[in-house]
Amino acid sequence: MERPTPKPGDALLSLSTPLPVIDEDRLAANIVRVQGYMNAHGLSFRPHIKTHKIPALARQQVEAGASGINCQKITEAEVFADAGFNDILITFNILGPEKLARLAALNERISGLKVVADSRVTVEGLSAHFAGRKFLSVLVECDTGAGRCGVQTPDEAVALAEMIAGDDNLHFAGLMTYPKAHGEAEVEEFFATAIAALAAKGIGCDIVSNGGTPSLFHAHLVPSATEHRAGTYIYSDRAMARAGHGSLDDCAMHILATVVSRPTPDRAIIDAGSKALTSDLLGFADYGLIVDYPDAVITGLSEEHGTVDLSKVEGPRPNIGDKVRIIPNHTCVVSNLFDIMTFHRDGVVTRVESVAARGLVW
Amino acid sequence: MERPTPKPGDALLSLSTPLPVIDEDRLAANIVRVQGYMNAHGLSFRPHIKTHKIPALARQQVEAGASGINCQKITEAEVFADAGFNDILITFNILGPEKLARLAALNERISGLKVVADSRVTVEGLSAHFAGRKFLSVLVECDTGAGRCGVQTPDEAVALAEMIAGDDNLHFAGLMTYPKAHGEAEVEEFFATAIAALAAKGIGCDIVSNGGTPSLFHAHLVPSATEHRAGTYIYSDRAMARAGHGSLDDCAMHILATVVSRPTPDRAIIDAGSKALTSDLLGFADYGLIVDYPDAVITGLSEEHGTVDLSKVEGPRPNIGDKVRIIPNHTCVVSNLFDIMTFHRDGVVTRVESVAARGLVW
Repeated sequence: MERPTPKPGDALLSLSTPLPVIDEDRLAANIVRVQGYMNAHGLSFRPHIKTHKIPALARQQVEAGASGINCQKITEAEVFADAGFNDILITFNILGPEKLARLAALNERISGLKVVADSRVTVEGLSAHFAGRKFLSVLVECDTGAGRCGVQTPDEAVALAEMIAGDDNLHFAGLMTYPKAHGEAEVEEFFATAIAALAAKGIGCDIVSNGGTPSLFHAHLVPSATEHRAGTYIYSDRAMARAGHGSLDDCAMHILATVVSRPTPDRAIIDAGSKALTSDLLGFADYGLIVDYPDAVITGLSEEHGTVDLSKVEGPRPNIGDKVRIIPNHTCVVSNLFDIMTFHRDGVVTRVESVAARGLVW
Repeated sequence: MERPTPKPGDALLSLSTPLPVIDEDRLAANIVRVQGYMNAHGLSFRPHIKTHKIPALARQQVEAGASGINCQKITEAEVFADAGFNDILITFNILGPEKLARLAALNERISGLKVVADSRVTVEGLSAHFAGRKFLSVLVECDTGAGRCGVQTPDEAVALAEMIAGDDNLHFAGLMTYPKAHGEAEVEEFFATAIAALAAKGIGCDIVSNGGTPSLFHAHLVPSATEHRAGTYIYSDRAMARAGHGSLDDCAMHILATVVSRPTPDRAIIDAGSKALTSDLLGFADYGLIVDYPDAVITGLSEEHGTVDLSKVEGPRPNIGDKVRIIPNHTCVVSNLFDIMTFHRDGVVTRVESVAARGLVW
């Protein structure tokens, strides 16, 4: 049987639920606002496509002025290369023969492919595979306080950069970090120290890449950076609004849900569960904000049901069959659950896009 | 570019990661063990396909003796009807014109379709839409302590059953509950009371449907039930093992992941994040069990990275490039992230199945 798919012209509130939808005007405004900030501060901007995984949206970002895109997986980068994107940074340590083979094939197809590395093991693997092939551009990933990947000190960054710069099969392209939120001072100190030490050895950094949406509008406080990467800003979400990146009114994604049960006066059950909202809490105590009933609390999720506590809702409470709009805690993981994304303006569906780069095994 | 897909005959540990994989022998044993228990106690068994969303697996369950299947969404039921399944119970309140139209179309195609309702609003919607069509079978959903959907008392169940039984367009098919774990006494009391009250009014209950994996092997403690529904048992997971449903050695699903960074002696970063493991904690403090390093703790997830604390690991610690196997906290939501599922036996891939019923908007 044909899969259910909204059509352009459909009334938004006529659509069956649960369904994630994107407000075109908020989306466009988010793209313009962030690109304008980057332009004002002379920073290149490289949107991370993990948030939407949709080539048409990356095209909007590039048309607004983005210099290239950021992917997290080779399979994502392949989808975007197929769609015509050329300047792609994969911010991941690539290891293992199957990934290296696909990386090399991708590097033959586009001129602007770049990856990161944070260890000699990763660099040795890249070098061995790229021997005799077109050289690969590699940035050194630096841990500036987020506690995830990355070399731990500027000295380690310099040592790894020297290894890459001295390798016949690789090109040292610069430095990259995924910072902690509001970690601008630490990022700048790390970058400036490493850049100076590299310059003293005659090694230049073409790209110095900072990232993250939460404190994006402080990116100018890292003058050593040449570019900024961010993904979540395009849709934004409850966690970004809490972090100070815009307001709840900038959130372009809502999950439409229907009240399917009112077992007790204080309990509503909606048809959005963990397979629509995900269990990402990101520090919240509940699973999303119901815009229409801000005092309602989504206290629990099973896979296809959300349990809503209405006890704090003054005035009218939702009835069975009512539709509600939910701002998710984390938009990127919601995108990742659905094969299609529905866009709307003024209550009418404008387009439906395939979430082309989701569902791939790696 | 062609999507990466494992092939039968591939060595499991040669596969690129992150990748969820299913042990064929554990899968088959889980099917046999649970069906054997149901047979021994004279209970019909209705597997919930939400866990795997793969018709070939439901076929294995039916071939082992299952009487039918359980779906949570109409779109899931459509995929399984397309694959030849006829006896399908959708345990969800169906509301709204688009869903009702698809439900009616499905009801014309298969003879064994059944849904549940827990309110007069839902029953009125079903009745209005099915007027003049083939009648629809409806069970009354009962809240026996789980605090999700369902009428709250046996009296309410009887009233709603009378409404359905007296409706020209609907057929009252029985009672259904999704119980709290180890809630057998409450389920039995609710069911027995409602069944007796219905019998006194001359209304029979063809189906009395209990459910859940956590206390599945106590299903015989609900003698009023005619059938049991369960999904998670087929793969099982860390939460089910903790609940006493089998052991960790019965878990058929692992997520294969690779150590991609060792930034510090106590920290490893793996390539499985919230887009491979999900953020479902289900009461655990960490995001899955690394079988090969049971003292390692997955303390945090970003979308494509998992952060692992190695400080409690005595002896050798994993190196960059090493592969590890992770038992997820919750298997059903992992299934829901990937377009394909890879099966193996004795370290060799046996087959790759499309997760056919995932990614649908509702």
